[in-house]
Amino acid sequence: MAGNTFGRKFQLMTFGESHGEAIGGVIDGCPPGITLDFEAIQRELDRRKPGQSAIVSQRKESDTVQFLSGIFEGKTTGTPIGFIIPNENQKSGDYEHLKDKYRPSHADYVYEKKYGIRDYRGGGRSSARETANWVVAGAVARQIIPEIKINAFVSSVGDIFIDKPYQALDFSLTETNAVRCPDLATAEKMENYIKQIRKEGDTVGGTITCVIQNVPVGLGEPVFDKLHAELGKAMLSINAVKGFEYGSGFCGAKMKGSEHNDLFNPDGTTKSNLSGGIQGGISNGMDIYFRVAFKPVATLMQQQEVLDNKGNIVEQQGKGRHDPCVVPRAVPIVEAMTALVIVNFI
Amino acid sequence: MAGNTFGRKFQLMTFGESHGEAIGGVIDGCPPGITLDFEAIQRELDRRKPGQSAIVSQRKESDTVQFLSGIFEGKTTGTPIGFIIPNENQKSGDYEHLKDKYRPSHADYVYEKKYGIRDYRGGGRSSARETANWVVAGAVARQIIPEIKINAFVSSVGDIFIDKPYQALDFSLTETNAVRCPDLATAEKMENYIKQIRKEGDTVGGTITCVIQNVPVGLGEPVFDKLHAELGKAMLSINAVKGFEYGSGFCGAKMKGSEHNDLFNPDGTTKSNLSGGIQGGISNGMDIYFRVAFKPVATLMQQQEVLDNKGNIVEQQGKGRHDPCVVPRAVPIVEAMTALVIVNFI
Amino acid sequence: MAGNTFGRKFQLMTFGESHGEAIGGVIDGCPPGITLDFEAIQRELDRRKPGQSAIVSQRKESDTVQFLSGIFEGKTTGTPIGFIIPNENQKSGDYEHLKDKYRPSHADYVYEKKYGIRDYRGGGRSSARETANWVVAGAVARQIIPEIKINAFVSSVGDIFIDKPYQALDFSLTETNAVRCPDLATAEKMENYIKQIRKEGDTVGGTITCVIQNVPVGLGEPVFDKLHAELGKAMLSINAVKGFEYGSGFCGAKMKGSEHNDLFNPDGTTKSNLSGGIQGGISNGMDIYFRVAFKPVATLMQQQEVLDNKGNIVEQQGKGRHDPCVVPRAVPIVEAMTALVIVNFI
Amino acid sequence: MAGNTFGRKFQLMTFGESHGEAIGGVIDGCPPGITLDFEAIQRELDRRKPGQSAIVSQRKESDTVQFLSGIFEGKTTGTPIGFIIPNENQKSGDYEHLKDKYRPSHADYVYEKKYGIRDYRGGGRSSARETANWVVAGAVARQIIPEIKINAFVSSVGDIFIDKPYQALDFSLTETNAVRCPDLATAEKMENYIKQIRKEGDTVGGTITCVIQNVPVGLGEPVFDKLHAELGKAMLSINAVKGFEYGSGFCGAKMKGSEHNDLFNPDGTTKSNLSGGIQGGISNGMDIYFRVAFKPVATLMQQQEVLDNKGNIVEQQGKGRHDPCVVPRAVPIVEAMTALVIVNFI
Repeated sequence: MAGNTFGRKFQLMTFGESHGEAIGGVIDGCPPGITLDFEAIQRELDRRKPGQSAIVSQRKESDTVQFLSGIFEGKTTGTPIGFIIPNENQKSGDYEHLKDKYRPSHADYVYEKKYGIRDYRGGGRSSARETANWVVAGAVARQIIPEIKINAFVSSVGDIFIDKPYQALDFSLTETNAVRCPDLATAEKMENYIKQIRKEGDTVGGTITCVIQNVPVGLGEPVFDKLHAELGKAMLSINAVKGFEYGSGFCGAKMKGSEHNDLFNPDGTTKSNLSGGIQGGISNGMDIYFRVAFKPVATLMQQQEVLDNKGNIVEQQGKGRHDPCVVPRAVPIVEAMTALVIVNFI
Repeated sequence: MAGNTFGRKFQLMTFGESHGEAIGGVIDGCPPGITLDFEAIQRELDRRKPGQSAIVSQRKESDTVQFLSGIFEGKTTGTPIGFIIPNENQKSGDYEHLKDKYRPSHADYVYEKKYGIRDYRGGGRSSARETANWVVAGAVARQIIPEIKINAFVSSVGDIFIDKPYQALDFSLTETNAVRCPDLATAEKMENYIKQIRKEGDTVGGTITCVIQNVPVGLGEPVFDKLHAELGKAMLSINAVKGFEYGSGFCGAKMKGSEHNDLFNPDGTTKSNLSGGIQGGISNGMDIYFRVAFKPVATLMQQQEVLDNKGNIVEQQGKGRHDPCVVPRAVPIVEAMTALVIVNFI
Repeated sequence: MAGNTFGRKFQLMTFGESHGEAIGGVIDGCPPGITLDFEAIQRELDRRKPGQSAIVSQRKESDTVQFLSGIFEGKTTGTPIGFIIPNENQKSGDYEHLKDKYRPSHADYVYEKKYGIRDYRGGGRSSARETANWVVAGAVARQIIPEIKINAFVSSVGDIFIDKPYQALDFSLTETNAVRCPDLATAEKMENYIKQIRKEGDTVGGTITCVIQNVPVGLGEPVFDKLHAELGKAMLSINAVKGFEYGSGFCGAKMKGSEHNDLFNPDGTTKSNLSGGIQGGISNGMDIYFRVAFKPVATLMQQQEVLDNKGNIVEQQGKGRHDPCVVPRAVPIVEAMTALVIVNFI
Repeated sequence: MAGNTFGRKFQLMTFGESHGEAIGGVIDGCPPGITLDFEAIQRELDRRKPGQSAIVSQRKESDTVQFLSGIFEGKTTGTPIGFIIPNENQKSGDYEHLKDKYRPSHADYVYEKKYGIRDYRGGGRSSARETANWVVAGAVARQIIPEIKINAFVSSVGDIFIDKPYQALDFSLTETNAVRCPDLATAEKMENYIKQIRKEGDTVGGTITCVIQNVPVGLGEPVFDKLHAELGKAMLSINAVKGFEYGSGFCGAKMKGSEHNDLFNPDGTTKSNLSGGIQGGISNGMDIYFRVAFKPVATLMQQQEVLDNKGNIVEQQGKGRHDPCVVPRAVPIVEAMTALVIVNFI
């Protein structure tokens, strides 16, 4: 396979560059008879799109999904669901200056070396615009497993982080602020920090925490397709992600077994949950939680050195979309990819 | 698929429980004409086996691999390589006390719930003995790509860690000590700490860092099978792993873009390498490096609460193999899985 | 997987019902740098479409393919090629009478039983309209392997058949007649017979022979993905196909080994070619040839018994498209699927 | 993938050459809790092995399967089932004369060209010995779906064929004669013919018909993994197979739609069954039946021309195993592969 398919049971194959006619995909393996809530799908797309608040890219895109097949009288039929999201704002001229340049920490250089050709407009296939396709498929997936609750939120931006366990948070507050942080005091600090970063023409990274509740026991394969390994792979597929940890994560590596073991209650639940809801790759019915690290995006609104295809280092002023912190917009993407993983094990 | 196959181009399908006749596997997709160094393969197995030093399990297993096919006059033929590793020390009686018990933070409970039946002897399929199969396949894989250097080492045990960048280390020192830490002063501290943990009947976690050098530009797929996503999935498949980060990792999430971007040299290399040798999922020719977090193993030589299949919590004394810190033994496993990922992209 | 993907290296995932918005697909794994001849692709679609001659369905559809991604300045980029073919003539009302009826030898009944829901308009997903997607992908595939010549033609209609070996035929005559039979005297007989069948409101089956020339030695896997097994599967995927044979085929089952063996020439070619260009699942460099059997299509312009969803047998007059013999229109489909198989082994 | 895996849900990956240590495989995806009848599995292997009657190869092999994992106290556990069949009679010296020779209509030449190396002993990986692995897996598969009845039998040898529909046959007679033909008068003719062929040092082809009864409605995917396409691919994977047809098959290509359509009964069954139990790729609950064509095997006990690796044509006397007609021994293989296909759709 050439790397544009996700999942085996509930499959998503995607296509599209940021500046072609459209992006889109095919969902195969959706069960028949599901009444789709199309507004809920569009709402997820809207959470991801640029221009939705003061702290993200100001570019306007409407990102409207069109379903082409697999649905009859509002219900899924069990046949593949084809969909497209037309591209707008396709001023290719905006990107002429990138034609023979490789920006630092972008994929320009490796695409050129791997394929010998690249669509340089807006990052082409390496653009995070692709994740809009994932959000569509994830929103469909969530409607197949409505009983499973998936809540992601921004848990840190730069050095600012929520200093509470997730159990102390009210997830209904996540969408009340532009940062998507359910701890409102922390959210305010984060928002101010991002505004400052924006003024500097710089960008900043952060982390997203995701909690999956109401998961049945038994999801995941015990050897190679462990539930947490699939979640990890899915998260590491998201643009700008540098790390993944679940349960006790990197902290667990410092602990002793006598501190780390999750003792049982008589009903099979556990007193603690450092395991993060997964034992031996298989869900044990406790909450699954994990954390994802995002680097700062590479596109700065500053003067920066780039490499051209003749081997010269040249100074170039950053242009185009400026996303000082993509982490808030990545929240629906994390949720969508989580749903895609879970639905493949149901 | 049922989760016992790794890879698509160079495939490994494995089988085996810790206490059946044998474990083993089939390697499909190995190129023809490779002269195999069987001693090198066995040497990797020996690095993984229990009983090799004073700080790991004292159980003796010889772990000898037998190749059954796919090799003719010492060379691979391009047909599948079947292999088995016979099990020894199969005293099933040792495990009768586990028949109807679920140990905390083991896979006993989830296997029972998922399959309705389980081979309770020594963890059955969930035993880390399975990783011996991976080491065999990884050792074969490494011989296909001898020019690519894969070096893993223990970078922390509990709170003790190497406080130098990997560039300051001499990888040839890794095998000179029982902990597999190339920084000898740190190694000594780690070894002493593990000995103390052993006396307590306890266990401790740690981290492994892996560096891949001499990687060609262009490995990895840009959307769903990103090189680092496959590495992450492979590492998260290893028993007891709780986290994965590459390049700047979780630290990168605290940084600004102006600090994080890796500026180019005229030859396409970069001045810094916070990206960790991968851009947009594709290798850029710089060193790839990542870090893997291992929790402390759950089997303690202490009195501990277990759940039985009638819903009672009972006290039980830990028995069987005691591995106070599995991290040193996991070093060849990390290298093997890394090789399996890389060879699938060649 | 849910059965809407073909191929592993050069993958096609399709979607679409005959009466939705559009059909289409995604091609993943197309090599970069191929200059696509879009007219050639459209020409193949035109060979498949209804209404192109007096002996096929008179329904008019323009079947215009739109490419949405994966192509930049006329060349493939190595990223997925998304495409759609908008549906026309979507008068759903035409099909109201089928809502609760199952036509004999159609897929109506099994879809209802399998999915519990079906898009009854024009056969929905079971419509041969889907094969337009295959023709698009096959036409792209052929441009990757221009040196390999794939020629299919109608070799029989009902009892009328070409009584010559393919070596005695001039493939350039195939497109000179509506039946796509390169033996012109036979073509005329076939055409007259089909016209008679049309008058009767009946349909008739036939066979297509396909010859692949200039194939390199070594394509195909020796055990489970034999070249001829993949060709067979591909052909049996085409609507209405009931049989596949290659080389000596069913005749070979009557022969002795001393008659059947293909003796070598000193250059590795063979004196005879009863093997059909494949030994042990691997191409040997000789011409590959095979034959495909098509049943008569089930839609008749006659009064016929149908089953309704209450268990009543009712008489119904055939309506809609009448394709007295689909075999001529299947010629480009056979060629497309052949190209898709071959390109997956290159 | 490299072509040594069959199936996706119930997977079989195999390995082994005719003259290595052992052949074997791994079955992944077997449901847990199945009490295996090991004698029944061995019985199927015995039906396939050489030397079982006067009309097949006289070579003696005991073909005893050893299960290594995935079974606990006689029951499957849901983990992979590893098995091996040790090779006997491994006198490699017998094959020295083939080291640099390519026999006509064998895979010697294509292996050499594809891989640049080959295990020339007894056909290596191209040996039909591999099918013993399939018989093991198929016998396991049949125990998962005991209610589905799979009966294959020899329907023709050379020009001698059963001139009755399968409904007129008593399948319990198949195993009463060496030819595995349930029509005893025809069986006798076939047996005499094969004995004559044996005396001539020649071989002969034939066909096998397979009937699957008691199949639930709804098996198969409607587009690319049609039930009959998977059956066709499975049959075309068997050594020496040249053709496959199901239902009306090649005869159907001569018929009119008004003759061919299977009219419904009120209960959803059909009055006729020219469709062969499958509509649009999905089982409709009627009997599935198909026919498979086997060419005569290429190894003759006669003087024959072979090609050497220097481009010389030399005369060589046939040696080794002589199987005048492999079709009777292929009956359990056809049944095994049928079971493997069906179990993948359950």
